[in-house]
Amino acid sequence: MITVALAKGALLKDSVNRFAKAGLDFSVVLDPDNRQLMVPSQCGRARALLVRNGDVPVYVAYGQAQLGVVGYDVLKEHQMAVAQLLDLGFGGCRMAVAVKKSSGYLCAADLPPHCRVASKFTYCAREFFDGLDLPVELVHLTGSVELGPITGIAEAIVDLVATGRTLRDNGLVAIEELFFSTARLVGHPLSLRLDCGEIHSVVEAMRLDEDHSQSSF
Amino acid sequence: MITVALAKGALLKDSVNRFAKAGLDFSVVLDPDNRQLMVPSQCGRARALLVRNGDVPVYVAYGQAQLGVVGYDVLKEHQMAVAQLLDLGFGGCRMAVAVKKSSGYLCAADLPPHCRVASKFTYCAREFFDGLDLPVELVHLTGSVELGPITGIAEAIVDLVATGRTLRDNGLVAIEELFFSTARLVGHPLSLRLDCGEIHSVVEAMRLDEDHSQSSF
Repeated sequence: MITVALAKGALLKDSVNRFAKAGLDFSVVLDPDNRQLMVPSQCGRARALLVRNGDVPVYVAYGQAQLGVVGYDVLKEHQMAVAQLLDLGFGGCRMAVAVKKSSGYLCAADLPPHCRVASKFTYCAREFFDGLDLPVELVHLTGSVELGPITGIAEAIVDLVATGRTLRDNGLVAIEELFFSTARLVGHPLSLRLDCGEIHSVVEAMRLDEDHSQSSF
Repeated sequence: MITVALAKGALLKDSVNRFAKAGLDFSVVLDPDNRQLMVPSQCGRARALLVRNGDVPVYVAYGQAQLGVVGYDVLKEHQMAVAQLLDLGFGGCRMAVAVKKSSGYLCAADLPPHCRVASKFTYCAREFFDGLDLPVELVHLTGSVELGPITGIAEAIVDLVATGRTLRDNGLVAIEELFFSTARLVGHPLSLRLDCGEIHSVVEAMRLDEDHSQSSF
């Protein structure tokens, strides 16, 4: 029995579609009336755990799920011991530094030393500003980070940008990109080593599907 | 201008009601169509910041909000430098240790040493198990902690229990209480010291309202 950790939210629909192409049908989780957090696949060979984004690498690292789908942003932030197996290509967004449009800052190096930067992704932000050798004070927020520069709690933010609409609506502008993030298939390293083919066949089916979708461009 | 940080979610309605009785009307935030995160009061004397639970103490500690309403559970977990001004009495829930009903554990001390305990509140959990002198491995999850014992990632959980329905629905039972949590009015210490009466008048009006509601029992 393979257990797959799926992130609730923006990645869910595409994740379910990709597993369906590999023969594991978890479409029940897309039903808005579904309240179950542990859902068997149609074929009975597997089950899905519906968890929050940040919990996918936790379930996979502890081996409670052998596979999982989660954004690269979360993987980079949480630094859990999971194997990155495939870049699934969907869920694309940029991790970016953003400031008030009126601030006049054109790149991250323009920010004043020791200024405050708000983020949900303080590990990623710390690594980035350390790389610039620019000391900043990080303020960890758990949501609505775009309020940071508006309220004055921070001069800049580090956050995910998909369409850029939230930034525009709040008078903010992205001035530098840390990295581009997409959904990744991850696996529990020990389960992969001990696998007799069951997990690898799913991974390979998802890889083939990936090659196919790329070649169709 | 007083800025008040309000937590989205379960505490919002009661928080708005309590501020209304103190003369600050933020009822706009209760409109389901409201998309604004920064909302002026009807009288124009104050504004509300609509933020996530865990961010209320951050905005108050940094002085971006002079007052805030947040659960005691969040205050205890985040340990930010804010002044606790009033116990507002609503939003009551217990922070509890829960296990599978079938596990046979009757109290926290029954748990095996070095077992895993899943929680969103790992600071509170660490303090509690240290107090018992019981070494446990804490697994930080960000949501649906009740999945912990079901998936086997943890033997027990530490989580908030309001009605107990989520526990029952998942075959879990609370075996020990860490503390009882209610909504608290918190303030930015420096703003309170420098206040010429504007903030204190709001706090006193909310305190009087509290005394009144208690005397009505």
